[in-house]
Amino acid sequence: QRRIQLDATRVDKDGHKHFMAKEIAEQPLAIDRTLHAYLSEIDEITLPDELDFTKVDRLTMVACGTGYYACMVGKYWFEQIAKMPVEVDVASEFRYREPPVSDRTLGLFVSQSGETADTLAALRYMSGKADQIVGMVNVSESSIARESDVILPLYAGPEISVASTKAFTCQLVILLIMALRAAQQRGIAVPEKLPSDLRAIPGLINQALTLESQITATCRELAAAKDIIFLGRGQLYPLAMEGALKLKELSYIHAEGYASGELKHGPIALIDDTVPVLVMAPRDALFDKTISNMQEVMARGGRVVLVTDAEGARIAGEGTSEVIVMPQVPDALAPILYAIPAQQIAYYTAIAKGTDVDQPRNLAKSVTVE
Amino acid sequence: QRRIQLDATRVDKDGHKHFMAKEIAEQPLAIDRTLHAYLSEIDEITLPDELDFTKVDRLTMVACGTGYYACMVGKYWFEQIAKMPVEVDVASEFRYREPPVSDRTLGLFVSQSGETADTLAALRYMSGKADQIVGMVNVSESSIARESDVILPLYAGPEISVASTKAFTCQLVILLIMALRAAQQRGIAVPEKLPSDLRAIPGLINQALTLESQITATCRELAAAKDIIFLGRGQLYPLAMEGALKLKELSYIHAEGYASGELKHGPIALIDDTVPVLVMAPRDALFDKTISNMQEVMARGGRVVLVTDAEGARIAGEGTSEVIVMPQVPDALAPILYAIPAQQIAYYTAIAKGTDVDQPRNLAKSVTVE
Repeated sequence: QRRIQLDATRVDKDGHKHFMAKEIAEQPLAIDRTLHAYLSEIDEITLPDELDFTKVDRLTMVACGTGYYACMVGKYWFEQIAKMPVEVDVASEFRYREPPVSDRTLGLFVSQSGETADTLAALRYMSGKADQIVGMVNVSESSIARESDVILPLYAGPEISVASTKAFTCQLVILLIMALRAAQQRGIAVPEKLPSDLRAIPGLINQALTLESQITATCRELAAAKDIIFLGRGQLYPLAMEGALKLKELSYIHAEGYASGELKHGPIALIDDTVPVLVMAPRDALFDKTISNMQEVMARGGRVVLVTDAEGARIAGEGTSEVIVMPQVPDALAPILYAIPAQQIAYYTAIAKGTDVDQPRNLAKSVTVE
Repeated sequence: QRRIQLDATRVDKDGHKHFMAKEIAEQPLAIDRTLHAYLSEIDEITLPDELDFTKVDRLTMVACGTGYYACMVGKYWFEQIAKMPVEVDVASEFRYREPPVSDRTLGLFVSQSGETADTLAALRYMSGKADQIVGMVNVSESSIARESDVILPLYAGPEISVASTKAFTCQLVILLIMALRAAQQRGIAVPEKLPSDLRAIPGLINQALTLESQITATCRELAAAKDIIFLGRGQLYPLAMEGALKLKELSYIHAEGYASGELKHGPIALIDDTVPVLVMAPRDALFDKTISNMQEVMARGGRVVLVTDAEGARIAGEGTSEVIVMPQVPDALAPILYAIPAQQIAYYTAIAKGTDVDQPRNLAKSVTVE
């Protein structure tokens, strides 16, 4: 039955070989739609009025898989921009550990389909305990949307490929706008340019998409690896996790994401010249620290693919086996832009391996069972 | 210089082939010492009086590597037993994300050596912001001990092997006693038998240690694998992470731990008959859920090693390739007991592979640099 459905929608691939390629390419447009929904023409935040951060002193975010990594990025933003403590948990753990929930908590539940069973159960656990239940979904008629006090649609458009791409970046955009709203409502000054900086993201993604041919070549080499480690620090740490998850899903290579500072507490024992290490490090405040971890890897014979910007490449490119040079981006927005190479690396490695990109083995698009 | 030092102490291996084997075997004694320090003869908690949970409404735990996984278990205990919200973070992330810290927070810093650079920096970040700084260390003259308001020594005795074993289980024991104290101070009823149940742990560990020959045989097969997945739910999820970390460190096999409910959100794509899956599932309230995830693995051709108790083996053993039958243990104490097979699996797999158990490549015992 699934095959029939995919055949019927083949016309919708818009000339792309896979839905995933189409959905990666759609991101500038999808994010434009999301920005249109949540920022006015004069860059005022137009989130629903009911979304009220003045009555809460903490935020609990719950999701699964890729949505969970979006929430992890959101945690960094809320803490740094709005000085608000955030707890993030995977839904299957959250629902059973019976965590204490104060009535000054805002619960945020992120699910592309809005039907993820564990996330819905977590929502129901928090319902009546938390001050407000917010659902961030791509399907507005979904169960999570129905049971939320406030619905934040992604406006990503239908996502067909099992591996989430445009839903992820739209989630990130909304999370950042939420953090800005929270800061405003809590009387915390925010970097004034941030909302207008967001307008530049679709253009920057278009630029990043032109790195496709370089990434394709890199992936032909990565495809031979059995194991790959992704490293990032701070707000790029969740991107390392997301890049590894995507690569696992699509290419069946055992990729694992790590906070780069944790490497020396064990996983660095894995490193030799057969395990490529992919380092995500824009030239931000943590750049030097991440690069120092990267150099530990190189000192142990590890092959490094460095994803950074022009300045980062100039400073730290030497000795790496490949540098992917991303456009310059304001620090806070890096996780959105760096999602693109994470997705492309997974996609082109899978192509090189010949796996079924849109329908990886063992996986379903929407996980409606526990 | 290191070699000279190890040679000089070889006499201290007590007939064991490696310090790690000695330290695994020492755990009943080490835990006995820890219990003696923190429980009176009539099972009253004898933590330092200054350790005061009445003035705080949340707990932040910071550590690296194995200590971080101990803290993750601690989070489950504190939330379930003392209904107290807990945040856990790896030190290298915590120190740079500048999280908001309320003065009603207790900061707990866990480090075997007491010299872990990132953990010490995180402590200094919280110092003056949090209500109280608590250091849990094995070395009482360490920097973390010196800069803490309250010191909780592990009493594990010197740990020489790079891979932490007895320090981990002693950390768990103290964390559980802390959670009981927090519950008492906050007027929350605790399962009355828990403190006295803890007394049984050294004996149960001695029983678990007798599974050595079965585990050795299992590990001869695991040693041929390139990749291994560890699964657990709830308080066994951190144990899955810890088991994977230990195996990585010692055998250089790419092991990864996962919350079993997250498997279907991506990583299950990795599973085929070349990737053994190690499932930690005592017969507790989450057993059925974990087993259902395990059965998804088996349905996809995955080979499963199930670590459970006699009742769990009877219910769910069929179709697995191996069942390791642990002694029965009260639910809350399972993470302490299940640390033993996690350690033994790493140890005997490394032996089968012929790697340097006490001094894995690329690793140092105490990470005093960033």
